[in-house]
Amino acid sequence: MSHVFDLSVREFLKVAASDSPTPGGGSVSALVGSLAASMVSMVANLTVGKEKYKDVEPEVKEILQEIQAVMARLEQLTAQDIKEFGNFMEVLKMPKNTEEEKALRAAKMQEALKSATDTPLEIARVCLKALELADRLSGIGNKGAISDVGVGAYVAEAALNAVLLSVDINLPMIKDEAYVAQAKAERDQLVARARELKEKAVAVVQSRLA
Amino acid sequence: MSHVFDLSVREFLKVAASDSPTPGGGSVSALVGSLAASMVSMVANLTVGKEKYKDVEPEVKEILQEIQAVMARLEQLTAQDIKEFGNFMEVLKMPKNTEEEKALRAAKMQEALKSATDTPLEIARVCLKALELADRLSGIGNKGAISDVGVGAYVAEAALNAVLLSVDINLPMIKDEAYVAQAKAERDQLVARARELKEKAVAVVQSRLA
Repeated sequence: MSHVFDLSVREFLKVAASDSPTPGGGSVSALVGSLAASMVSMVANLTVGKEKYKDVEPEVKEILQEIQAVMARLEQLTAQDIKEFGNFMEVLKMPKNTEEEKALRAAKMQEALKSATDTPLEIARVCLKALELADRLSGIGNKGAISDVGVGAYVAEAALNAVLLSVDINLPMIKDEAYVAQAKAERDQLVARARELKEKAVAVVQSRLA
Repeated sequence: MSHVFDLSVREFLKVAASDSPTPGGGSVSALVGSLAASMVSMVANLTVGKEKYKDVEPEVKEILQEIQAVMARLEQLTAQDIKEFGNFMEVLKMPKNTEEEKALRAAKMQEALKSATDTPLEIARVCLKALELADRLSGIGNKGAISDVGVGAYVAEAALNAVLLSVDINLPMIKDEAYVAQAKAERDQLVARARELKEKAVAVVQSRLA
């Protein structure tokens, strides 16, 4: 099956804006996270190979490699989020005429809900990774393009906050209390850590623009 | 000339992540703003025509029309941001051998800087419009998809903050003090208003998810 990233940007926007439920908030957030990561990658690429930044080159090369892995992972997760939605819709269509059917449907529903919560949580973790890399690059990346590390930081934090709304939707319907408690705790940690990293990275960027 | 939105999503991300300076932070922010707007549009589309939301249909139709105008405008502004960058590069290449050449280059540079500041300011204004529409839709849009209005709000605010970094870069180089003062004031107003609208829209979305 072709990937949603094969669509032109215009086509992607058109289908996202339409009444088709996919791509929805989860996959759009993952793409937004990819765009954030692309800015970190661009600034790393504009730093590597420049005489002026020779001293930081080994670290910037490492950042470059890691941000490329972030982008590849977000591409997979965009497709996975769309697939989860399809799975969920399939479960909704399961019959519920007999007690046995009802029990099977309810069990499958709990599985689907957990899976549809794991994916946005993983997207948020990868967005946090992008923020960590933006933070590392903010002080050492090419000054002539450093504002784009700030773009990456603002946009990655928003992608993280946005995708966690999918977690907020699903948790009230999940009956496994231990799972819910752990997911909530991780959600809160991700939000707090992302805000901290964004503020730090943007402050460093602003100081280097001044 | 073909538009950058004609690229596939994958190609766009690849060129954004490369050492090619365009698409840079300004145009990526505009695309991020378009993705935010697409989520507002999707929820409006999922509300119109539903019996349950008949009472709010006239207002939701109005929101839908306005968010579609936002998306069309952001597509134009993405291309314009890339064009501004090219113009700026042309000015940098102007000769500066004689006093006359230097004066002409300096004057053209001031023009180019103002133009390269007006475009991100306009992108930020359009992102604010998207936030206003997200806020209007948050209380009345289809509850089954309302989290995606929250996605739109988070992402539109980030696009606005991100694109204003381009304003921050240019202002210190602009000599027209009245222009600088006005741009700074508008910048600060946009940031404050965007934060307010995002917080309001997300709070309403969260209350409807609970």
